[in-house]
Amino acid sequence: MPSECDAPSASEAGLASLEGFTFKEVLNSDITRKSIFVLLEKDGKNAILICDKQPFAENPLEAEKWIKGSKMNLLVKNDIYGNYEQEIPAKLNGVKSTLIYPATEKHVLKYRAQDRYLIAETGVDYETITLPHILESNLSVQWVYNCLDHKSEQDRLIFEDPDEHNGFQLYPDLKWNGETMENLYCQALVRRRGIKSVRDLTADDIPLLENVLEKSKKAIRERYGVNPAQIKAYFHYQPSFYHLHMHLVKVGYDAPGGSMYSIPVEVAIGNLRIAGDYYKRATLPFMGKALDPLCQKFKAAGKIDF
Amino acid sequence: MPSECDAPSASEAGLASLEGFTFKEVLNSDITRKSIFVLLEKDGKNAILICDKQPFAENPLEAEKWIKGSKMNLLVKNDIYGNYEQEIPAKLNGVKSTLIYPATEKHVLKYRAQDRYLIAETGVDYETITLPHILESNLSVQWVYNCLDHKSEQDRLIFEDPDEHNGFQLYPDLKWNGETMENLYCQALVRRRGIKSVRDLTADDIPLLENVLEKSKKAIRERYGVNPAQIKAYFHYQPSFYHLHMHLVKVGYDAPGGSMYSIPVEVAIGNLRIAGDYYKRATLPFMGKALDPLCQKFKAAGKIDF
Repeated sequence: MPSECDAPSASEAGLASLEGFTFKEVLNSDITRKSIFVLLEKDGKNAILICDKQPFAENPLEAEKWIKGSKMNLLVKNDIYGNYEQEIPAKLNGVKSTLIYPATEKHVLKYRAQDRYLIAETGVDYETITLPHILESNLSVQWVYNCLDHKSEQDRLIFEDPDEHNGFQLYPDLKWNGETMENLYCQALVRRRGIKSVRDLTADDIPLLENVLEKSKKAIRERYGVNPAQIKAYFHYQPSFYHLHMHLVKVGYDAPGGSMYSIPVEVAIGNLRIAGDYYKRATLPFMGKALDPLCQKFKAAGKIDF
Repeated sequence: MPSECDAPSASEAGLASLEGFTFKEVLNSDITRKSIFVLLEKDGKNAILICDKQPFAENPLEAEKWIKGSKMNLLVKNDIYGNYEQEIPAKLNGVKSTLIYPATEKHVLKYRAQDRYLIAETGVDYETITLPHILESNLSVQWVYNCLDHKSEQDRLIFEDPDEHNGFQLYPDLKWNGETMENLYCQALVRRRGIKSVRDLTADDIPLLENVLEKSKKAIRERYGVNPAQIKAYFHYQPSFYHLHMHLVKVGYDAPGGSMYSIPVEVAIGNLRIAGDYYKRATLPFMGKALDPLCQKFKAAGKIDF
């Protein structure tokens, strides 16, 4: 996806409407976040329209405008409660959209909804299915090593503990704008290599987890002024890359990836105290899409039926 | 809140606009779900306006209408990607609203945002702070007993296993319309009394959890045709009432209560296998609002700083 810095050129003029496009189908939608992905067609070529309803404007001047400019159509009234269908002027109720045209088959596949399944991975499943899959896939985490070796993204670094055993680097997550505290989202990369996920953690790693948790919260308080008691720290399972990293977000913020299984760091520490080999034996759920290679392997092993 | 069955009467006519109201402040908002709670005033009395942007209409006929009727204002274009501010006609981009007028101070308090904090409750914290609080508060679960005793809500019952030790009742959650499978949401109430939350579970309860999990998924498949591999089953901590109940939702659906800590049932079973007294010793996080009595008690005990 292009960044918003790219200026439009005259030869690539945008559209004023979508009247020339034919509706084909809804590829996917998110009824919670109010977004939709629609497949359109024009001149025999596919187009994908991605629409996101925007949050309500909260700034008093703007809020007053859309409130006073609204038309209120009564649905039902009872005592002090009135339910309405509210029509906000289109200009004040904008939708952010992206149109991909012409779109390739790959684009269509990327945006089309896929059924998702819950896989409850036991310790044995991890050893026999997931670990071989990770090793075979040979997924590179070179970009992580580039960060740890100070070769890239150093202008974004918030804090570093250089200790080779228990140290880490703290960055703002790429999805965060770095400014609005309501959706603060940081990520800590541990310095030690070879810890692929929580599955590799043992009681010996409690000092590592405590160190990253405590110092990250402190660094966030110092840089952004957010109370450590309002920071939620967790690991994802399966992680999106296999080098141990901790997510830190402001409580109340539904960070993307909410459908992934989250393990609060305090819970992980508690688990390792209860049993040093907890993560070798625990059942950890994760979500798989039907076409994911790992999901396919669980299916082939008869662990999931779809 | 009144149900949608109540017909409006002439004497309680609704408004056509909000022009007579003065904007006071935004009480709260949810930027993920695109909803807002606004405090207004008219004739010296408070009003609360609650607005929810609605999901995009997906039905082909309706989708075609809002797509073709939109005005597209180009923001930036690069190669095949165009970013737009899209204006959908107000009638096709409705917002569901509720106006409470006149609103009491209690209403204002209910809708005003409160800072929330993450509390990592250890087993000892539970024994010394949380359990005494639960016992003191004397919260009634009589409505649960009414269900279990077949005195209420029996028309809503999906399935019952009458066994007094490992049995349960399965209901559609009140927040689910019972029709759209994308947001399927059911709740299982265990028959056995006295299990307040996961904290009371021991290895002896593994058969109970397995029974509720397996039979609930089977009943959901039979009634609603949803694949058991697409059902996510979990407990909340703290629960919203202290009689053990299991939430069952379709994967991919962000059920309300997402800010509460969720424990997948498969994880709970695995934990009890690793240590029979796991839930006596585990650290369990939960979210507290500043004014919650339990949150206040953790503060008084020096366990949280805000």
